Amino acid sequence: QDSPFTNAGTGSNLNISGEIECDASIMDGKSLNYGAVGALSGIKNPVLVARRLLSETQKGKLSAGRIPPCFLVGKGAEQWAVSHGIPACPTEKMTTKFSLSGYKRNKRKMELAEQVETKKRKQSRENDFGCLEPVGDIMVEGEENNSACLDTVGAVVVDREGNVAAAVSSGGLAMKHPGRVGQAAHYGCGCWAENARDVSLYSTAVSTSGSGEHLIRTMLARECSTAMQTENAHQALLEAMQNKFISSPFLAGEDCVLGGVIVLRCCSCGEAQRSEDIQALLVEFLWSHTTESMCVGYMSAQDSKARLHFHSPHTWAGSCRVLTPRGLLSPTKSVTRVCAQIGFCAPCANKPSLGQASGQVIRHSLQRRHAVGAQAFELVLAKQRPGSPGQLFQVPRRTGFLLIKPTKQPQPLRHCGPDTS
Amino acid sequence: QDSPFTNAGTGSNLNISGEIECDASIMDGKSLNYGAVGALSGIKNPVLVARRLLSETQKGKLSAGRIPPCFLVGKGAEQWAVSHGIPACPTEKMTTKFSLSGYKRNKRKMELAEQVETKKRKQSRENDFGCLEPVGDIMVEGEENNSACLDTVGAVVVDREGNVAAAVSSGGLAMKHPGRVGQAAHYGCGCWAENARDVSLYSTAVSTSGSGEHLIRTMLARECSTAMQTENAHQALLEAMQNKFISSPFLAGEDCVLGGVIVLRCCSCGEAQRSEDIQALLVEFLWSHTTESMCVGYMSAQDSKARLHFHSPHTWAGSCRVLTPRGLLSPTKSVTRVCAQIGFCAPCANKPSLGQASGQVIRHSLQRRHAVGAQAFELVLAKQRPGSPGQLFQVPRRTGFLLIKPTKQPQPLRHCGPDTS
Repeated sequence: QDSPFTNAGTGSNLNISGEIECDASIMDGKSLNYGAVGALSGIKNPVLVARRLLSETQKGKLSAGRIPPCFLVGKGAEQWAVSHGIPACPTEKMTTKFSLSGYKRNKRKMELAEQVETKKRKQSRENDFGCLEPVGDIMVEGEENNSACLDTVGAVVVDREGNVAAAVSSGGLAMKHPGRVGQAAHYGCGCWAENARDVSLYSTAVSTSGSGEHLIRTMLARECSTAMQTENAHQALLEAMQNKFISSPFLAGEDCVLGGVIVLRCCSCGEAQRSEDIQALLVEFLWSHTTESMCVGYMSAQDSKARLHFHSPHTWAGSCRVLTPRGLLSPTKSVTRVCAQIGFCAPCANKPSLGQASGQVIRHSLQRRHAVGAQAFELVLAKQRPGSPGQLFQVPRRTGFLLIKPTKQPQPLRHCGPDTS
Repeated sequence: QDSPFTNAGTGSNLNISGEIECDASIMDGKSLNYGAVGALSGIKNPVLVARRLLSETQKGKLSAGRIPPCFLVGKGAEQWAVSHGIPACPTEKMTTKFSLSGYKRNKRKMELAEQVETKKRKQSRENDFGCLEPVGDIMVEGEENNSACLDTVGAVVVDREGNVAAAVSSGGLAMKHPGRVGQAAHYGCGCWAENARDVSLYSTAVSTSGSGEHLIRTMLARECSTAMQTENAHQALLEAMQNKFISSPFLAGEDCVLGGVIVLRCCSCGEAQRSEDIQALLVEFLWSHTTESMCVGYMSAQDSKARLHFHSPHTWAGSCRVLTPRGLLSPTKSVTRVCAQIGFCAPCANKPSLGQASGQVIRHSLQRRHAVGAQAFELVLAKQRPGSPGQLFQVPRRTGFLLIKPTKQPQPLRHCGPDTS
């Protein structure tokens, strides 16, 4: 959120009135509690307000038995944040040169498009209601130079006990109407986290990015979480993106379905249990997007900074399994604390997308590149004996790429899956 | 919404600042489109803004390819409404003597509760964080005299083609924080409507009422809709209320789970198909609530006013099947037009609820009264030959009650189910 290059917090897209209004939410997979803010101005880190809402919920009822809110919007949300010790921040401090120039460019585009449409209407007069025709190729979301532009910030995390959490923060669509709330504030749509229970083997955490209205109507975060209960996570995510998003009946007629997800799932059973470290957690991290590109980063509690990877369909799919130190995330840091730091996904929505209207392209992409679907690497998060060393290992794959650099003292590789070459 | 006795539009609960902020949403089961407003002030009928958002979505993209919003909140929502021809209404006109006296009473209760809690904290000093203890028996939601007080307004409708829609409108919790948005504005939580598709036999429409935060976290509207795809609707709703709401893991630790749903499902197959009117639709209407009482009404497009029934656990379960005129709702009226008129449900949340902490009571209630679960009556909505008369019929049941009065020319009864005595 503090980076001026992401569409969250500082540097967020400006709405049609030139103002910043942010959405953010957070979910704790252990308690299943949830906090969200929508159309929030004047707070530097909206996700901190969401987190505070969540933690206040966990304290129980307010005076006179009132149920604490889980979702606050607008001016009321700002007042609540300030009254709970989160400092206000002048919106002009959150507006960057980058976001302002984008706003001006988008405004020119909009004016131009409206002139064209007015002209068209005058010429044809087909429709008494005067409804606008879509001008799909002048999508004002994002920036012109999309390789330099990142979007929504999402995070999925796990601690060494296997508790998961997810968060998301977004400035929303560029040139949106004031008061518009996108998926980042919507329960089940922006993020989802659910620890394993009796009926579910895997703990899952999901965070989404893309066209908010499409992500809301398909409830993509929750759908992906639900899909993750089958054995093959890679295939499950691929199918979820295809059936629950790209070809979803909830988006029938939409010609431009843009979205991306980061997914983390973990379980304490299966392969990891068969290894020597019987307490090991098997953690898988996957992502998928219909957007032109997506940026993914990851870090452990020992890292001061996330390692980043910029992903586009030109990158081939890959996976790896890695043995980490005692915990990927330090148990002394709370899950929600780390949430706001770990990773981000960034669809650049400026380009033609893969929607129902271009189904052929999707299938082609899926076959050729396997990249509109999902990519995975898996982490074995071992609970080693106290004092024993643990490291990050690099596992090159035939079709893979790898993000994690080996630490100083590499250890023998753990082969956990049949497809690890 | 226009009734001063419901917690929606005029007469809505006041928030802690003494202001009205309304939530409303609507969903069209045919297009699966959705519109919602949250924390909206200064508009007499919030659901009309939601409906307008829905219809604007159906017109396609805005200028320059921008995606139209489906969810607007606060001041921005009010501005949007006014710019789309929905007149502003001074909030003082929406405040009634009833809501104002309730506000004053609740404020006194709150002050009293806070005094008690401050005293308790001073005495014990157990907790450094100073978190408030719940004072469950001074729930400020609703009014003191709950028999005279109605809550959220919900509606589920079907037209004679079998298209369904659902809507909900609420002033939210009394003494809520400004900017708090409840289930009535939340996708999947306040209402849900989904026409039958390849994978689903039944069209379903659901609207919910109760404690917003609980209805959000359990996504009750969508869960009930999903549950309705099994044959026995009555049993399915009962189980959904029990497993997805009262005993939901998403509400673990909550001692007071208050909610109600109205559900409509319809299909053009099965029993109705076997009758002489092969085009007949079988429509079932069900409701369920954990609140002390619930008010249900219904009307056809021919009626000028809904017939109402006030339901409490003391009422026994019942059902009936009724043969209606050509269409229960006139096809000349759009589904969404009728939506805002048809029915309402009203939990009176002032009394102890049935939650996880009182599971014994729930089971007892379920066994003894069958009333915390679901009740149903079924309508056979026959498409008769043009000109032929059709009437509403009364079918008394052994354990039943009946709401529908016979019309002037009663016709022979249609026995459609094995349990119709």
